[in-house]
Amino acid sequence: MLPLITRWTVGQNEGVTFPHGFCAAAARAGLKAQGDDVALICCASGAAAAGVFTTNQVAAPCVEWTRRVIAGGTVRAVVVNAGNANACNGPAGVEDNLAMARLAAESVNARPEEVCVASTGVIGHPLQLDLVSRGIAVSAASLGRGEERDAAVARAIMTTDTVPKYAAVELESDLWQGAVRLGGMCKGSGMIAPNMATMLAYITTDAAAPADLLQRALERAVAVSFNSITVDGDTSTNDMCLLLAGGNGPAISDVEFEDFSEAVTRLCVTLAKKIARDGEGATKLIEVAVYGAATEQDARQIARTIAESPLVKTAIFGCDPNWGRILMAVGRAGPKIDANRVDVSIGPERVCCAGAAVPFNRETAHQHLRGDPVRILVDLNLGCGASTFWTCEYS
Amino acid sequence: MLPLITRWTVGQNEGVTFPHGFCAAAARAGLKAQGDDVALICCASGAAAAGVFTTNQVAAPCVEWTRRVIAGGTVRAVVVNAGNANACNGPAGVEDNLAMARLAAESVNARPEEVCVASTGVIGHPLQLDLVSRGIAVSAASLGRGEERDAAVARAIMTTDTVPKYAAVELESDLWQGAVRLGGMCKGSGMIAPNMATMLAYITTDAAAPADLLQRALERAVAVSFNSITVDGDTSTNDMCLLLAGGNGPAISDVEFEDFSEAVTRLCVTLAKKIARDGEGATKLIEVAVYGAATEQDARQIARTIAESPLVKTAIFGCDPNWGRILMAVGRAGPKIDANRVDVSIGPERVCCAGAAVPFNRETAHQHLRGDPVRILVDLNLGCGASTFWTCEYS
Repeated sequence: MLPLITRWTVGQNEGVTFPHGFCAAAARAGLKAQGDDVALICCASGAAAAGVFTTNQVAAPCVEWTRRVIAGGTVRAVVVNAGNANACNGPAGVEDNLAMARLAAESVNARPEEVCVASTGVIGHPLQLDLVSRGIAVSAASLGRGEERDAAVARAIMTTDTVPKYAAVELESDLWQGAVRLGGMCKGSGMIAPNMATMLAYITTDAAAPADLLQRALERAVAVSFNSITVDGDTSTNDMCLLLAGGNGPAISDVEFEDFSEAVTRLCVTLAKKIARDGEGATKLIEVAVYGAATEQDARQIARTIAESPLVKTAIFGCDPNWGRILMAVGRAGPKIDANRVDVSIGPERVCCAGAAVPFNRETAHQHLRGDPVRILVDLNLGCGASTFWTCEYS
Repeated sequence: MLPLITRWTVGQNEGVTFPHGFCAAAARAGLKAQGDDVALICCASGAAAAGVFTTNQVAAPCVEWTRRVIAGGTVRAVVVNAGNANACNGPAGVEDNLAMARLAAESVNARPEEVCVASTGVIGHPLQLDLVSRGIAVSAASLGRGEERDAAVARAIMTTDTVPKYAAVELESDLWQGAVRLGGMCKGSGMIAPNMATMLAYITTDAAAPADLLQRALERAVAVSFNSITVDGDTSTNDMCLLLAGGNGPAISDVEFEDFSEAVTRLCVTLAKKIARDGEGATKLIEVAVYGAATEQDARQIARTIAESPLVKTAIFGCDPNWGRILMAVGRAGPKIDANRVDVSIGPERVCCAGAAVPFNRETAHQHLRGDPVRILVDLNLGCGASTFWTCEYS
């Protein structure tokens, strides 16, 4: 079923409280060197929810906890602290995580089992629960909606991020009355050397959708957004991405699913690109698009290998249209290719055709490499598999 | 069968002409900005040979050519040029590679089929055969033995390397009369951003050994040396490692194999560590040893993941005993582990026990991290699998 979206509005100034039914607030607990470091998101009516979590075998207690909350069916709050990941802290870490859920639950009249918890920051340091407790109390007392709140909570969950990351989408479709709103925020740093690399993302929507549809939409979105940015290859102990549907807006069933799913995906891609381009010293986004692969999986693996290649990244940093390095990455990625069929373009310039050099305008290629974003296109000329990865330039 | 080696001498001033029967010379062809860029190694009596080659599907003509020369059974010369990889040059590249083999063969009275060819440098630029031809002629006219020649050829094959890399081993054993000599040189750069990342390695020995034993010894050695250094993850179009046995020294059969194999391995590890620590800005070697894995393969994958983790490397660069990052890398490496059993040591300091923090002397840990090499030990407490990887620090 093709999407029947009639109007899209992407907002860069709105975030998680853009959808009706959600409020939020941030406060300073004192875990980070400066600024707010506790964020609270509330949905008093109770939201249906979906989640995607880190695959790291060393996972923080908050991951297991929040997985169970999502499975429970109703989420009334999300509490996030930045500065301490509460990971690798043994049984005490599990206790502290539970305490955090209880404190947040009390402050918003919910049950602890309805409160998602996330922590991000240093690993192996006991959580300073007294500080977190104060942060939760202050934020609970100032819950509200609007652009200021959206920016404040996005800023509170930052660690090595240099900018807060949030966006919103309003979506009209022939399939429903009125508009569906989605808001989102995330943290994570595209720099090669973050101190705390955890990726957190929270998407809210006022749509009314059952958990299984939310889960399907979120997994589909994450695959081509947060899982298609390649930054430092490190999967954190605390990564999570949640989608909360408050239920005050249009209802989403199987009929409306494709439209809704498309909206979730576009919002996640918008947020993911903000992560890919963020980081100290990183000044531009690199987009690697692979076409013509035998399968989508092949395309994905090759796009990822190119995006992760330090040789490719340094060439881009040096504005050097060195397609040999791109071809080298294609050749070692794993999937079977035909080296004599590969075409490579850097921006508008075809620099390699059928695996060998072709004359190209070096000045145009240079100019594209000096710009932002930089686009690398690889056509394997084998099939219909395609995939896009984003990364940042590498100094 | 345990090795019965009675005396080891490792030389840092000798290289490929240390074993009897080999001579070598270098010359300037003009492919690199400065210095010699053609190297010739000769074994007039004809050497038995083994080879390990790049697995990249985009391979230069010299790789396929040299693979066939090795299979032919007799090698009388190796010719290497640095500055141009002669890769991705289409049919013209194949012709130029053959011409290079012919020129070298003529200059040393061999057949082209007895001449291994290697090229390293930029990809996708036609080889300047006239320059290479002059380089081959000049080096053939000045073939000789000794420390000066060993250093000169090791320097000639460099690209982004900052130092020439060569070493030798003399080996006595209860199993043979006299000594077996091995000499070796390699190129490859441990920096994160090499311009030309090809790894070449040449090991010579005066032992008399059949090709199948040489192949077995070389593959075993490469696995724990050149394939256990992790630098930038890029597998080049031109990588190769050859082992040439001239046959003037002790005979190696199945009985002597373990001793001989051990010698090849130790020489390759010595050379590989020189690659791991080389590179602009890289000042120290990092050794990652993983013990107690369920299998050796598990240990290898985990050691590699730790060694490749930018988060771990930057922590070491910052002299930060951040074991959380090491645990995080262990958890995402793939092999099944028990997070609650993992012990981590940084040099002499146990910093994590059973997956959680233990008190440790931060000053001792700092001091170790400021030194060179830095050693990270991870005990998974699951089985007997062990593996060591080397990498360089990451600024």
